[in-house]
Amino acid sequence: MTDRRFSDLNQFLRNLKPSKIFFLCDENTHQHCIPELLQNLETEIPFEILEIEAGETQKTIETATRIWEIFAEFETDRNALLANVGGGVITDLGGFSASTFKRGIKFIHIPTTLLAMCDSSIGGKTGIDLHFFKNIIGTFALPEQIFVYPDFLKTLPFEELRSGFAEMLKHGLIADAEHWEHLISLDEISAENIAPLIEHSGNIKQSIVNQDFKEQNIRKILNFGHSIGHAVESLFLKNETPILHGEAVALGMICETRLAVLENLISEDIGNYIIKNIQKYFPHISITDFSDEQILSLMMNDKKNIGGKINFSLINGIGTCLFNEYCSPENVLSALDFYRNNAAIL
Amino acid sequence: MTDRRFSDLNQFLRNLKPSKIFFLCDENTHQHCIPELLQNLETEIPFEILEIEAGETQKTIETATRIWEIFAEFETDRNALLANVGGGVITDLGGFSASTFKRGIKFIHIPTTLLAMCDSSIGGKTGIDLHFFKNIIGTFALPEQIFVYPDFLKTLPFEELRSGFAEMLKHGLIADAEHWEHLISLDEISAENIAPLIEHSGNIKQSIVNQDFKEQNIRKILNFGHSIGHAVESLFLKNETPILHGEAVALGMICETRLAVLENLISEDIGNYIIKNIQKYFPHISITDFSDEQILSLMMNDKKNIGGKINFSLINGIGTCLFNEYCSPENVLSALDFYRNNAAIL
Repeated sequence: MTDRRFSDLNQFLRNLKPSKIFFLCDENTHQHCIPELLQNLETEIPFEILEIEAGETQKTIETATRIWEIFAEFETDRNALLANVGGGVITDLGGFSASTFKRGIKFIHIPTTLLAMCDSSIGGKTGIDLHFFKNIIGTFALPEQIFVYPDFLKTLPFEELRSGFAEMLKHGLIADAEHWEHLISLDEISAENIAPLIEHSGNIKQSIVNQDFKEQNIRKILNFGHSIGHAVESLFLKNETPILHGEAVALGMICETRLAVLENLISEDIGNYIIKNIQKYFPHISITDFSDEQILSLMMNDKKNIGGKINFSLINGIGTCLFNEYCSPENVLSALDFYRNNAAIL
Repeated sequence: MTDRRFSDLNQFLRNLKPSKIFFLCDENTHQHCIPELLQNLETEIPFEILEIEAGETQKTIETATRIWEIFAEFETDRNALLANVGGGVITDLGGFSASTFKRGIKFIHIPTTLLAMCDSSIGGKTGIDLHFFKNIIGTFALPEQIFVYPDFLKTLPFEELRSGFAEMLKHGLIADAEHWEHLISLDEISAENIAPLIEHSGNIKQSIVNQDFKEQNIRKILNFGHSIGHAVESLFLKNETPILHGEAVALGMICETRLAVLENLISEDIGNYIIKNIQKYFPHISITDFSDEQILSLMMNDKKNIGGKINFSLINGIGTCLFNEYCSPENVLSALDFYRNNAAIL
């Protein structure tokens, strides 16, 4: 990585002139990303590094409180800047902490995972978890800017890369058939192969968000694969055998693609073609430990349901998606059965 | 109080159709205000009452977390409504909790103190305290509506009424000479005398807020009396001999009026006239326990200062106020001396 790569960050800081900079990171990004960042940082502005432990378990009000306390100890004023250097936990938590300190100080994201680069850093949702409720506390607050350095992906384990790839596939499926075709033509998920596609994938999300910031309508299509995905992710978490978010989303997209077939939104052929291509990258994860009732009850609580039907965002073609699609529990269970019985339809 | 008084709240609820209503109150408003409110409530919508202990010490992240937990336990969706029934602690805390739950549910304020009716419920600032830092965590979030029932003032101790009166005096001094004259013509601070003036006082604040929601410029004039007032209020709190916010503001307005004289913004005659009229309602509170250094150091930390000077909002006439007025520490100390030495200039 050359100096030049960071010139835009340096230019941004010269223009903004914050009173102070805080870099929020975890031990992984502290080790793998912060040194390179600091080496290329050209600024006279005083800065501090705040390190938290890595992992979703840190996305709590306790950690946010600790960050606020540090801001207060440093007599941080409203012209300070928080730079969130990490994955979704860091950008969600940092965004929340910054947007609520003195009713909002400025923040930027420097995402270091593929998931954060093409998805979670975009769209202005900040959040922390409360017990088992993911992202239940948060704000809508936009970062001043997002700086994407794909070279950081080289330090990422393959599974983390693949996890972000699931959201890229989703962006293609819901809004851009060409992006989908481009992605499934990749022989291998690698930093080199993916780097050229990140910006476009992020732009797909950005353009959806721009139409509906507060998620009243069209933004809901970004939830494709997430209704079933989130429910399953929660159950694995409660079982203390967590799976990665993208793995849950891939699983959810398979089930919800099948659901779209059952709801006559897409043909069985198109459905199988989509599922086959997701399975090409994502090996089957068994959900036989969870009962229909467990999965369904989580979705019933999670969603606004009408007349006993569950609200989904479902594709009605490759590159196009509907929201507020109310599906019967029977079809949902049938989609789950399909998943359980079809470990692979390749 | 007749049914008719609550017809606007009932009409509001009929229009909004929230999925659920939570009434947030403390033990005082639970006893004195909630029964009357519920007696007149005409709605089929399910509701819950959340009671917290009274007092500023409850305005913490722990109490906000407890409120979030209750929301989560009730599977509260984004169409729920939080009604904050109380003084500034309830409206600040409730506003913060609502504005951050699921990235924002709707809330209304039903202020029950004079301070909340004419000041703190207006303007969309929510906040909680962190250790000794008042309102350091918060959001900008507007209530759907504010319902003012002056009859609630009848249950209020005189000191609480007088505390709110200080902010009314401030509204007159910074923006409306006629309002000021009206207020100082009152023989006695009583619920009956004040009720007719509340709406206008609130409107003064509202019109300032409308010009500058995020407090970039003109909204700062609402801080008149608060730089010194806040510092002194904090010191009394640390001493475990807290004084009421309005008492601190009255004290602060006396000092900062003197400061305006020293800065040649108003004549000594006008200054003494203002101070005399504040003292008519607010007996002298001794600050001899606090050193110049203690008071000054709190203000130095609190404010954006330039070249060792301290940033104030200062009146330059009755009904007109400047912001970003940088004053020397010498003049600030001289104003404090004036206060200490002039228990009464009547």
